[in-house]
Amino acid sequence: MKILVVGSVAYDAVETPAGKRNSQLGGSASYFSVAASYFSEVALVGVVGSDFDPADRAMYEAHGIDTSGLISSNGKTFRWTGEYLKNINQAVTLETQLNVFGDFEPELGSAHANAPFLFLANIDPNLQLKVLESMTERPKMVAADTMNLWIDIERPALLDVISKVDTLLINEGEAMQLTEQNHLPDVAAAIISLGPDSTVIKRGEYGAALFGDGFSLAAPAYPLERVIDPTGAGDSFAGGFMGYLASVDRVDQETLRTAAIVGSTMASFTVEDFGLDRLKQLTRTDIEERFDAFVNLTRFNPLS
Amino acid sequence: MKILVVGSVAYDAVETPAGKRNSQLGGSASYFSVAASYFSEVALVGVVGSDFDPADRAMYEAHGIDTSGLISSNGKTFRWTGEYLKNINQAVTLETQLNVFGDFEPELGSAHANAPFLFLANIDPNLQLKVLESMTERPKMVAADTMNLWIDIERPALLDVISKVDTLLINEGEAMQLTEQNHLPDVAAAIISLGPDSTVIKRGEYGAALFGDGFSLAAPAYPLERVIDPTGAGDSFAGGFMGYLASVDRVDQETLRTAAIVGSTMASFTVEDFGLDRLKQLTRTDIEERFDAFVNLTRFNPLS
Repeated sequence: MKILVVGSVAYDAVETPAGKRNSQLGGSASYFSVAASYFSEVALVGVVGSDFDPADRAMYEAHGIDTSGLISSNGKTFRWTGEYLKNINQAVTLETQLNVFGDFEPELGSAHANAPFLFLANIDPNLQLKVLESMTERPKMVAADTMNLWIDIERPALLDVISKVDTLLINEGEAMQLTEQNHLPDVAAAIISLGPDSTVIKRGEYGAALFGDGFSLAAPAYPLERVIDPTGAGDSFAGGFMGYLASVDRVDQETLRTAAIVGSTMASFTVEDFGLDRLKQLTRTDIEERFDAFVNLTRFNPLS
Repeated sequence: MKILVVGSVAYDAVETPAGKRNSQLGGSASYFSVAASYFSEVALVGVVGSDFDPADRAMYEAHGIDTSGLISSNGKTFRWTGEYLKNINQAVTLETQLNVFGDFEPELGSAHANAPFLFLANIDPNLQLKVLESMTERPKMVAADTMNLWIDIERPALLDVISKVDTLLINEGEAMQLTEQNHLPDVAAAIISLGPDSTVIKRGEYGAALFGDGFSLAAPAYPLERVIDPTGAGDSFAGGFMGYLASVDRVDQETLRTAAIVGSTMASFTVEDFGLDRLKQLTRTDIEERFDAFVNLTRFNPLS
């Protein structure tokens, strides 16, 4: 097993300018694991309720995702209701029903506890710490995401998590809130001063910025003709990012740069349709063609 | 004479989080012509008042800028007062004193009327049309900028200008207002449907997007440690963009791509200090090093 992701699996009700879905598979671990599955072996640790559709578990498994850590619990699956009607870049949460996710206590089997790549998706930082402590040895690379809620109510635990990860992936607004800085290079420097070697600051339709030791990369968002549903774009980015790094099994400036573009590539597919509808049905050719489109989107000639 | 720019010369009073200046040389034609002067011959057509400092004219001339079209008129130089205190990306205009610029009627001498590259900076579109009609032959390339005021009060004349230019450079917010679209590729397509072959949509700290016939380029903003004063960034972009195109004397997808990065390079210098303080004192090495920094900011390796 190359990559372990611990995060949420959810049924989402989403409304966007393109339409409405009442219950679609979502959650950070879903987007992450499906995106990463195109590059590397992935195991998913999470919890679902007794209402979880066997077809959804089968979809994971069709992508080669190890779901032995996806526990089924009595109760209902985590449910998020949100909309992007005013601003396609900004989800407005209408309702959160934690359901079985409210009592989630990640338990790692021995097959998972020695994964060399670990992604701590956006969950309570105390649980993120618990997962880190459950690893039999320190993974080669640990990345984490977080959100405003944990910055507000669990800052000490979150800072502890951040001090222990290699890369923090975080939305720009939340990165500003975390660091109390508002100028991108200052935000990135402040995050790196908390411990990580690198950080990816996610900027919605403006793409993402990767900052590492003495370098930065501006990864644009792909100018898609239609953005249908931005839900899961950030976790798809993380899945492509970690999936690529695990596939090359090397984490350095050069691989991080390419990984950020792979992340952008996978995020660009996710937003093309509702939920996982586009992401789950990609071919290698689709991915290579979109990656090449990013090459074209960023290429220019030397100054002559 | 390779490039003719028609636009404003101003004294600006500016306050930013980094400080305050009571009267600094500015105006679209100032930033444009100084930025372009590093690449190509430039002539500036505009008007100043009797208060115009001879040292400022000498600064243009030290950059090889032809100021024979910079008319001196009785009265005061155009004066803009603005601040960027709440949002470094968004100028708030506190006062505009048009002064001699209110009666500006561009007159082109014969040395200017056959320039192969023409930049119509942000002025009344009726004057932009008059300049276009004054050219002895249609220039090889015409680019224009505009602003919300003209979209509001002179839309028919502005649409006439846009139908006659090769490239429209425009702020994202104003591009949305102009096209009544809000998704970047739709905005760009709508502009191109009005006539231009290409458009540069300026996105402040998020950089600029170039759209042409079947291609697009995401030009990032440089993640500078400190942004001191964003005034003139867009006109400096335009100056670098047109200056580079005039220097290679070829306008096609490949040269437009490089030109957009040269534009971003020049804009990145402008914002590093108040007014023209940084832009006016560059060396070729400074420019090459910053351009190379853009190469590093955008480079990644193939998907392996």
